[in-house]
Amino acid sequence: MDAQQQPSFSRRIPEGDDRERPVCDACGFVDYQNPKVVVGSVALWENRILLCRRAIEPRSGFWTLPAGYLELNEATADGARREAWEEARAELEIERLLAVYTILRLSQVQLIYRARLLHPAIAPGPESRECGLFDWKDIPWDEIAFPSVHWALGHWRETRDRDGFAPFANPPGETGRLERPQGL
Amino acid sequence: MDAQQQPSFSRRIPEGDDRERPVCDACGFVDYQNPKVVVGSVALWENRILLCRRAIEPRSGFWTLPAGYLELNEATADGARREAWEEARAELEIERLLAVYTILRLSQVQLIYRARLLHPAIAPGPESRECGLFDWKDIPWDEIAFPSVHWALGHWRETRDRDGFAPFANPPGETGRLERPQGL
Repeated sequence: MDAQQQPSFSRRIPEGDDRERPVCDACGFVDYQNPKVVVGSVALWENRILLCRRAIEPRSGFWTLPAGYLELNEATADGARREAWEEARAELEIERLLAVYTILRLSQVQLIYRARLLHPAIAPGPESRECGLFDWKDIPWDEIAFPSVHWALGHWRETRDRDGFAPFANPPGETGRLERPQGL
Repeated sequence: MDAQQQPSFSRRIPEGDDRERPVCDACGFVDYQNPKVVVGSVALWENRILLCRRAIEPRSGFWTLPAGYLELNEATADGARREAWEEARAELEIERLLAVYTILRLSQVQLIYRARLLHPAIAPGPESRECGLFDWKDIPWDEIAFPSVHWALGHWRETRDRDGFAPFANPPGETGRLERPQGL
């Protein structure tokens, strides 16, 4: 393989399909693209919330919940636990599903769990500059990486003392689309 | 492009990655594979449940709930509505999230909603041989296409008169893995 060679794709409708897909001009490979699953958690130790300051783009330097892409052959709760380990060396017990968000702009489905840290020993993994356990009033609200982190923190706060609730979806009007929906 | 040419992939660790991925031998394209999101519904008209008899493999001829792959830039509830239209020409109002199942063997995350038909006019789409509205006692239990259809019907039944519940996960011991987990 020539390391300089870049694959070139054209949009065509593959045989037996009903919509255009990227097809490699060189080899005919059809790159079926699907929404991606992100798994993460609002994880607590004695009423303090685990946050990580990102060491990578996008939004390097901003604070986020431990979350990332689900891997193949991985259960969603296991993925949320793995991400907390990779980003903060935190060990979690997953309690329940807090929210299912759709970020249309990125074609992401985010499954965010409520979780409990098994011990307060945390340390930044390779994708984090630092990590910490924050009381609600000390959360760095002006340095949060993504809108869905705001949503998840708010939804956690709203149900912190409850168990009988359905998981939240995006807040009203927040589609994660590039364009505002009509009427807003 | 030669229509007879088949792309050939080898498993290698791409630069900056930490695990093997399929890489095209011809063009260097990295085929990042991710779990796929399936969206579907247990949809009712006057206490009868919408089921579709599959016209396509796998499990052609068996009955299933309307469900399929979420498309790019599509909200999960919209995808569940689209699948009900495509498979049964049914128009739905989505009520709430009933279950989140992980099928490890297929790397699928299934989001199954509880929904209501807006009218009883249904008709098979191209992927269905027929479709119908079934009283619980008349469901063709011996001709159900997939285990997760059994799970969703049971979970719907368990919560049919309730609203304050968290979505179900896989029933205990049902991982959807090829192998049984240790200890079972």
